[in-house]
Amino acid sequence: MNSAEVSPIAPAEYEARRAAVREGLAERKLDALLVSNGPNLRYLTGFTGDNASLLVTAAAGAVLITDPRFEIQAAREVSCAVKIAKGPLLVEVGDAIRRHAVKRIGFEPARTTYEAYRALVPRLPMKAELQGVNGWIEGLRMVKSPAELALIRHAVGISSRAFEQVASKVRAGMKESDVAADLEYRMRRLGAEKPSFETIVAAGERSALPHAQPTAARLREGGLVVVDMGAFHQGYASDMTRMLFVGKPGAKVKRAYGAVLEAQLAAIDAVKAGRPTAAVDRAARRVLAGYGLERAFVHSTGHGLGLEIHEPPRLGKRDKRRLEAGMAVTIEPGVYLEGWGGIRIEDTVVVTPSGCEVLTPTSKQLRVV
Amino acid sequence: MNSAEVSPIAPAEYEARRAAVREGLAERKLDALLVSNGPNLRYLTGFTGDNASLLVTAAAGAVLITDPRFEIQAAREVSCAVKIAKGPLLVEVGDAIRRHAVKRIGFEPARTTYEAYRALVPRLPMKAELQGVNGWIEGLRMVKSPAELALIRHAVGISSRAFEQVASKVRAGMKESDVAADLEYRMRRLGAEKPSFETIVAAGERSALPHAQPTAARLREGGLVVVDMGAFHQGYASDMTRMLFVGKPGAKVKRAYGAVLEAQLAAIDAVKAGRPTAAVDRAARRVLAGYGLERAFVHSTGHGLGLEIHEPPRLGKRDKRRLEAGMAVTIEPGVYLEGWGGIRIEDTVVVTPSGCEVLTPTSKQLRVV
Repeated sequence: MNSAEVSPIAPAEYEARRAAVREGLAERKLDALLVSNGPNLRYLTGFTGDNASLLVTAAAGAVLITDPRFEIQAAREVSCAVKIAKGPLLVEVGDAIRRHAVKRIGFEPARTTYEAYRALVPRLPMKAELQGVNGWIEGLRMVKSPAELALIRHAVGISSRAFEQVASKVRAGMKESDVAADLEYRMRRLGAEKPSFETIVAAGERSALPHAQPTAARLREGGLVVVDMGAFHQGYASDMTRMLFVGKPGAKVKRAYGAVLEAQLAAIDAVKAGRPTAAVDRAARRVLAGYGLERAFVHSTGHGLGLEIHEPPRLGKRDKRRLEAGMAVTIEPGVYLEGWGGIRIEDTVVVTPSGCEVLTPTSKQLRVV
Repeated sequence: MNSAEVSPIAPAEYEARRAAVREGLAERKLDALLVSNGPNLRYLTGFTGDNASLLVTAAAGAVLITDPRFEIQAAREVSCAVKIAKGPLLVEVGDAIRRHAVKRIGFEPARTTYEAYRALVPRLPMKAELQGVNGWIEGLRMVKSPAELALIRHAVGISSRAFEQVASKVRAGMKESDVAADLEYRMRRLGAEKPSFETIVAAGERSALPHAQPTAARLREGGLVVVDMGAFHQGYASDMTRMLFVGKPGAKVKRAYGAVLEAQLAAIDAVKAGRPTAAVDRAARRVLAGYGLERAFVHSTGHGLGLEIHEPPRLGKRDKRRLEAGMAVTIEPGVYLEGWGGIRIEDTVVVTPSGCEVLTPTSKQLRVV
């Protein structure tokens, strides 16, 4: 679990990603792609600062434009050309577009504010125009490289170890928020940059809220506790859910837990390169229907994860995509009964040609504390 | 420090905020304002879910539109009308605009993606049009109410107490990232929802990076350590910076520390309702110039904080605004010398008619550990 054991993404991999974009420009009838901030920019460059734009051109490679605060950082992280803007970034972006004489420039409408769009348009040279392109880089990001999978695997290891350290000490009377604080502390101590989302610790009836935030409520004897947690490690996310039970679970809890576990295992069995994502969701739903719990399963079975905690593909009823080897996805069916509680079990898995590899090593027995 | 001691914002206060918006529509020649997600929506409603739009109309009050996952939460948090969208939110927003027969609808270009804008336009009724309005709600948010100041004060108390608990245990040999993890853990245990930004713990030469992320580097004898931290409590932020020194500081450290402290105190003395924000910045800069350190102060003297960790006003060289009583701002001059280190001292203060109240109770002596 020493973070020094996991290699960062190599410069050559970033270069290959940018080469794929350059090669894809022609079929989209574009001369360049403009990517600003966020995970797509990090994917294409490795840059982790929070004020930058990347212009990838078919003819001349790529240039990252950022401000003086990030000069040292960009030099260290980025292998393409870097331009430090003295004034507003957008002025420098307009100049780069002019310098490269590109006419049709793709941009990301879902990741660009209306304000930024409106500010850029008057800075474009004559005859240059912006063309909305959504989901292209997200599409490239879906299938992970071996280096990315190593980072996700490491992030999974961090959250599973933190869970183990904390779960063994959970007792009735503890506050949800204190358990969550302890989990996040352990993840950081194990090398996480931060939690990959706000850790969920929800006890009793509150476990029926799929997006519960931890409160000051105390864990009570005879109650379910849902723990949904993940870590970012070198920018890559993990995601897991396990259930605790405070005291001795009764027949209804055991039956519902068994149903969700069976559904989760059936969904894992359904994962395989080439399968429609909806088939995985259907496998989970079919099991729950057998227990009369189909309507209590109110979300989709899973989602991709990587540089974002939620990214394509989605594994839901109506999703059309097919799984591909190298995709990292969660498998997380759950049932939610208002006034009673909720049960969810979640692993991170990697799609392989013959099935999948479950990364999450944590036992899926209902854990009695 | 019991969070039960701090009252949440009352429904009447949210209603007054929305009333101010309704009254401000006419002078902006608008029939309605559309606010989506984020801190402005929370400011106007108290809603903490992450998928919602608010339509405030001059004639008929306000309606919050969200999806079924947030039905229970919206009913609990929001005092205006709530509409649960069965399908995409934008369809329901278009319907609400039609139902209220509003023609000129303000929206927030800096907080709306180009994609969302483009998707909404075709859903508008004939003759309705969107009109960009930036900074209006941010302007209202600058001056805090007594209830908001109580929450900020509480958040400040959380970070100061957490600092005290951790600083007393810091020793040479500890990792930056472990100290940061401990600070965040203590803040959570004291009632914070989460850190208000990624906690900075940067030792030795790395203290010269104003935006340093904690690394696995260990604190070494004879080095400066900058600790910049804050908490969110009921949505409101705190922000503070203190310096530690591992071992016995030499003359150069003492002199630079004294200069920054003098600059910080001078800036605090310059705070008063009616003063230009730039005058506060100038007060800090003038002191540092007296020590030949003016060029080592590479950022502005402070910023507003509240529902966001950075919000207007900014206290920089070229900022034009005047301070008003009830503004909560940071005062944080610093000096950064590459290859040597950096020193920053930061408090959260509230502007009053006669000066300001410093909320941060933590000692500003250079803390030797």
